[in-house]
Amino acid sequence: MTMRRNDIDVLIQEVGPRDGLQAVSAVYPTEGKLAWIRAEAAAGVRQIQVGSFVPPKLLPQMADSAEVVSAAKKIEGLTVSSLAPNLRGAEDAIRAGSDIVNFVLSASEEHNQRNVRCSIEESLERFSQIVEFRNTDPAFRDVVLSGGIATSFGCTIAGQVEEKTVLDIAQRYLELGADRIGIADTVGYANPAQVRRLFTRAVNLFGDDANIGAHFHDTRGLGISNVFAAYEAGVREFDGSLGGLGGCPYAPGATGNIVTDDAVFMFESMGVRTGIDLEKLLAARQIMESYLGDEPTHGAFVKAGLPKGFDSRPQYV
Amino acid sequence: MTMRRNDIDVLIQEVGPRDGLQAVSAVYPTEGKLAWIRAEAAAGVRQIQVGSFVPPKLLPQMADSAEVVSAAKKIEGLTVSSLAPNLRGAEDAIRAGSDIVNFVLSASEEHNQRNVRCSIEESLERFSQIVEFRNTDPAFRDVVLSGGIATSFGCTIAGQVEEKTVLDIAQRYLELGADRIGIADTVGYANPAQVRRLFTRAVNLFGDDANIGAHFHDTRGLGISNVFAAYEAGVREFDGSLGGLGGCPYAPGATGNIVTDDAVFMFESMGVRTGIDLEKLLAARQIMESYLGDEPTHGAFVKAGLPKGFDSRPQYV
Repeated sequence: MTMRRNDIDVLIQEVGPRDGLQAVSAVYPTEGKLAWIRAEAAAGVRQIQVGSFVPPKLLPQMADSAEVVSAAKKIEGLTVSSLAPNLRGAEDAIRAGSDIVNFVLSASEEHNQRNVRCSIEESLERFSQIVEFRNTDPAFRDVVLSGGIATSFGCTIAGQVEEKTVLDIAQRYLELGADRIGIADTVGYANPAQVRRLFTRAVNLFGDDANIGAHFHDTRGLGISNVFAAYEAGVREFDGSLGGLGGCPYAPGATGNIVTDDAVFMFESMGVRTGIDLEKLLAARQIMESYLGDEPTHGAFVKAGLPKGFDSRPQYV
Repeated sequence: MTMRRNDIDVLIQEVGPRDGLQAVSAVYPTEGKLAWIRAEAAAGVRQIQVGSFVPPKLLPQMADSAEVVSAAKKIEGLTVSSLAPNLRGAEDAIRAGSDIVNFVLSASEEHNQRNVRCSIEESLERFSQIVEFRNTDPAFRDVVLSGGIATSFGCTIAGQVEEKTVLDIAQRYLELGADRIGIADTVGYANPAQVRRLFTRAVNLFGDDANIGAHFHDTRGLGISNVFAAYEAGVREFDGSLGGLGGCPYAPGATGNIVTDDAVFMFESMGVRTGIDLEKLLAARQIMESYLGDEPTHGAFVKAGLPKGFDSRPQYV
């Protein structure tokens, strides 16, 4: 399901309806989520993380995730992705019909404790339970399980994070049955030299066994350069949030997730095929914003539009 | 004068007092320019483009350029750079004491006509006159002449620009006596694959004969990734505007010059030495903004600050 298709060079996973909206306090209507998801799929986005299976009491924004997954499943050609923090959430995510379920732990023990109140080892045990659940029912055989590693490039609590820690966790995920590894700069600490170094090692070690995805934040302005560096290292799956929706909980006014539209513009202008139509993507952005209220959005491409004489034919060297 | 120093790996040229202010209509006071320039020099910025020698009637913002050059010359360790569109301007710039004089033509004939009302060939003839003026007086022997090439990655009028055109102009500049070549993405069209390709060729062809500088705009969000790609190609001189001052005349609300502070943050976080103290740079940014009025500024690093456990020791691989 997460496999690269023949007609695209990179897979852009839209995470705005989950990671973006998670940071928005006003509850976004279900019909708005679906209009947004449909418009983005129509623009050519092939994989969208549409919700999170957490207790509605904790995150009212995600209370309709089962309904959203179920409706999104009807969109032809769309891979429906969701987040689950534990077995209970993963059961719900899988039963709702998610094609991919993303589990996340932090490479920083301190951040993992703060975020999910358990050790990295306990988080891996939870992931193992999810694999077991997936494996026991043949109906769920095709569900892809992604092992996410947050704060892979540094942590707001612990500071620096060792590369070896990230790679060891990736290795453990794969041994436990992960189909995909997601390496995330959750707090916007990464720089392109560091990104290339870590992803080069990850691709060399695990690229034959699993898809490797990169998740960057633009908190300090290096998000898109990190995408380029990870692409250079061989990464072919990238997360982004349309309009940079969500911002950064650690830095008021700062951007959070990289802006999907800017990332797609970079790839398309290099002739790296995303399968996404940039004008339709901006139309989807308008639909997303129309349900948002005063929530700020971000991005540069939206303000400037396509260059004159724009040519997205392959030119990558 | 533009040579790389032993204790830094890249030279960041601040162009805000020229390229940034040029786009600001309210006249910025001379004392403000000097306070800004002094604060940025104190932060470790070693080269600043402080003014433009154009008729004051055309650009009142730059009417005090001779005074600013003269005062900036007294700052120890600072290389004082200015812009001149023709011989008359270059004479004034050199007599005022500029260490570097930048001349600019456009790689697009249409853009050059629109901008300076002559052909590329006529522009090169003007540059030749400037070289002759510099060479005739021994007192001016050390003045560095930089040949700038605007719209090197595309043009808002002509669309695409051929790489060969840019390289041919660079060759002509060098034959005429340029000490430095500045290759500019004046309208924010460049992508990192294109940047690496063109600069790799430029560095291979001319890197032994001249310093090669890169000037990027962030109009479509790719400015910092283009800096990274040019660094990868061997470029060691980069222009930036503190706080992204100036915006983009072609796209309302969009950024123009790349944000100096974000570029310095990227290099320092990769352990590539700029010689610049990031905290002092943000202090200089505050001084710059204190004279600005309502003019918008840009940048991500300023909102988020240094990562916890930040380490700028060399880590580049």
